[in-house]
Amino acid sequence: MHIELINTGQELLLGRILNTHQQWICRQLADLGYEVNRQICVADEGASIQAAVRESLGRSDLVLTTGGLGPTSDDLTRELIARLLGRELALDPAILAGIEQYFMRRHGVMAASAKVQAMVPAGARVLPNSNGTAPGLAIEVNPNPFRAGGGPSWVVLLPGPPRELRPMFLNCVVPLLLTEFPAAAKFFSRTLKTTGLGESLVEERIAAPLQPLIARGLNLGYCARIGEVEVRLAARGGHAEKLVEEAEAIVRGLLRSLIFAVDDGTMEQTVVRMLTEQNKTVAVAESCTGGLIAHRLTNVPGASAILKCGMVTYSNEAKCDLLGVSASTIAEHGAVSETVARQMAEGARNRCKTDYAVAVTGIAGPGGGSEAKPVGTVFVALADEKETVAKRKLNPFDRETFKFVTSQQALDLLRRQMLSEDSSEDPSR
Amino acid sequence: MHIELINTGQELLLGRILNTHQQWICRQLADLGYEVNRQICVADEGASIQAAVRESLGRSDLVLTTGGLGPTSDDLTRELIARLLGRELALDPAILAGIEQYFMRRHGVMAASAKVQAMVPAGARVLPNSNGTAPGLAIEVNPNPFRAGGGPSWVVLLPGPPRELRPMFLNCVVPLLLTEFPAAAKFFSRTLKTTGLGESLVEERIAAPLQPLIARGLNLGYCARIGEVEVRLAARGGHAEKLVEEAEAIVRGLLRSLIFAVDDGTMEQTVVRMLTEQNKTVAVAESCTGGLIAHRLTNVPGASAILKCGMVTYSNEAKCDLLGVSASTIAEHGAVSETVARQMAEGARNRCKTDYAVAVTGIAGPGGGSEAKPVGTVFVALADEKETVAKRKLNPFDRETFKFVTSQQALDLLRRQMLSEDSSEDPSR
Repeated sequence: MHIELINTGQELLLGRILNTHQQWICRQLADLGYEVNRQICVADEGASIQAAVRESLGRSDLVLTTGGLGPTSDDLTRELIARLLGRELALDPAILAGIEQYFMRRHGVMAASAKVQAMVPAGARVLPNSNGTAPGLAIEVNPNPFRAGGGPSWVVLLPGPPRELRPMFLNCVVPLLLTEFPAAAKFFSRTLKTTGLGESLVEERIAAPLQPLIARGLNLGYCARIGEVEVRLAARGGHAEKLVEEAEAIVRGLLRSLIFAVDDGTMEQTVVRMLTEQNKTVAVAESCTGGLIAHRLTNVPGASAILKCGMVTYSNEAKCDLLGVSASTIAEHGAVSETVARQMAEGARNRCKTDYAVAVTGIAGPGGGSEAKPVGTVFVALADEKETVAKRKLNPFDRETFKFVTSQQALDLLRRQMLSEDSSEDPSR
Repeated sequence: MHIELINTGQELLLGRILNTHQQWICRQLADLGYEVNRQICVADEGASIQAAVRESLGRSDLVLTTGGLGPTSDDLTRELIARLLGRELALDPAILAGIEQYFMRRHGVMAASAKVQAMVPAGARVLPNSNGTAPGLAIEVNPNPFRAGGGPSWVVLLPGPPRELRPMFLNCVVPLLLTEFPAAAKFFSRTLKTTGLGESLVEERIAAPLQPLIARGLNLGYCARIGEVEVRLAARGGHAEKLVEEAEAIVRGLLRSLIFAVDDGTMEQTVVRMLTEQNKTVAVAESCTGGLIAHRLTNVPGASAILKCGMVTYSNEAKCDLLGVSASTIAEHGAVSETVARQMAEGARNRCKTDYAVAVTGIAGPGGGSEAKPVGTVFVALADEKETVAKRKLNPFDRETFKFVTSQQALDLLRRQMLSEDSSEDPSR
């Protein structure tokens, strides 16, 4: 089965916004065992959209489009595709009534331009929009004049706003897919997320041992991201799950505690889960990460049970006042020092009466570096009832990357401490 | 001039990662006055990459590819494009020496697979990689056998990791573009970011007054994002800048303080800038946003001068201990209440001795809602030397959207207070 995704929107080609639809839709389809063969982005402009849809229909069983169903003058997808397929548009009174209701409830007034969203091409299935005004449309193109042989295809038009697109996809598009295109082959995948080794060194450890499984149909992929490398194991067919599980066991044996999460899991989810399972609490004292560690932890539902408090102590006064760091230590060693990181962790743990406390202090840049402590220098500390450990790291990246990598190192330090593992046994540390 | 961007990588079509390259590259090109006509994503697999490059070369003056230059087995772009263009690959000893040095310095050992990155197609220009091992390649295709008429094109191959791609693009690709394709037309654009009104109501206010300028060549676009609506004004030609400035004046007159930032500006940058200019400091007390407000502020260089401290007081004890919220107030009104939000703001301001303090308390969900205070309920408060103001909001979104929208409302409350503007004069509030 061949699937193509067309994202429309001048703002995408101007780089005004990130194409989050691509990731989300591709991910949903991959999880169901469907593969997207190509994704295309064109401006919301007549010739571009029609050319792209025509070409994709020539290759595909299913073409999904996003965007251009709204009320403003640059929303053209509905009309352009109807014209390309030679379908008349007609006003659907039920949809119009729904749009009117939606506007009156939210704004007390209906924008006149909103009416266009109730126009439906002949023969199209309407996909209700539970979070907005523009319904989606699913059109069976049979025969398909653009495809050699004329075999049938579907075109599915989805609205641009993610809050509208996502429930519509799950509630309307997935059932349509499962009916019209029952997945051809069983599919199974697992992604292991690692931190601490670069991409080619990860490959060097695992590629050769996996060769026999690759020969049996295992698909092995890598993806290097900031602060982590993903290893993706996938297979199709009746033995897919067994093959992937065999591969996972091999990779786990080789990478061990470098693996911090599986599939969609994140470092913060792993940390919150481990703390919850062990019935422990944590406090966070952040200087250079400026709240990011607390933010990441509190993105996980249930974090309120394990995170007692977080303190963003940018200023020296705050470090002394809130965390009890000694002013003379700061004077002697500097605010960015191992001693201060240790005192911050211990101070946060005492103050908040938690089992663990994590602290970071460092130089995010662009200013503030010196020869002894260049921009990117960071000290990460962890205090628990037995001990306080600290590590010095160098993260010479732009400000936001620096903050993310530092937060990853701090959370990983906590994770490894909870694993009660001697980190010296791991050659990557 | 016709430009196409091809992003390669199975992980993109599987939805494992966001295509940040698209946004970044398109943005750079737009700022220089170039337009990307199409972006395409294909898997890192022979037939797909070659078909996409062949088709794009048939339409384009410039084709940019990203990804597939690395050392692992799924890195195929270099070889596939060389083969498509009929160019021999040869080992470049200088590149190989650089790769060896890079590995020895960072890991003390060189992965054997890294050598492939030193292969260069005949006639290609090498684009040095200052942050990694794989150089980029720029190939002039002249004559271009895939294009009607055979007119020349360029293919530029860029590495996948953003830290490598971005400096290479700025240092090598931009100069190449400016030499080979001096921008055809003067181009000017401005984006005004607004918060507080939906997309169609923004359009209803500004579209008609802008009609005369649209007739004179102004391009007007909208982009609805979480917590904000962007208005984009653009024009080409000799009068572009004047036309856009005229339009900006009209939009500013109509939307006034709803506009919080320009172009790439963010709410947090505006707030940090205003605080810096007014020589004021702020403290942040966060419950349901869990550190996101502090994180956003500290993403702005120079934030250390205005943010004295942040406190993430998830637990009631922390609210009482760190912020001096009264336990009886929590018992009487609940932790999510206007009174608690006010006490949090006042407590943070007193504790940290700042000019302003912002506080939020709310129910992020998924659990914790009630009929009187459903999931999404939030109280935002701001204390300064004159008064404490508080607002109740309902943000019934998923957890991360909830956190973002709430942080946006809190920062906007601070911004409006600094504007010393009576928010009641604005019908959108």
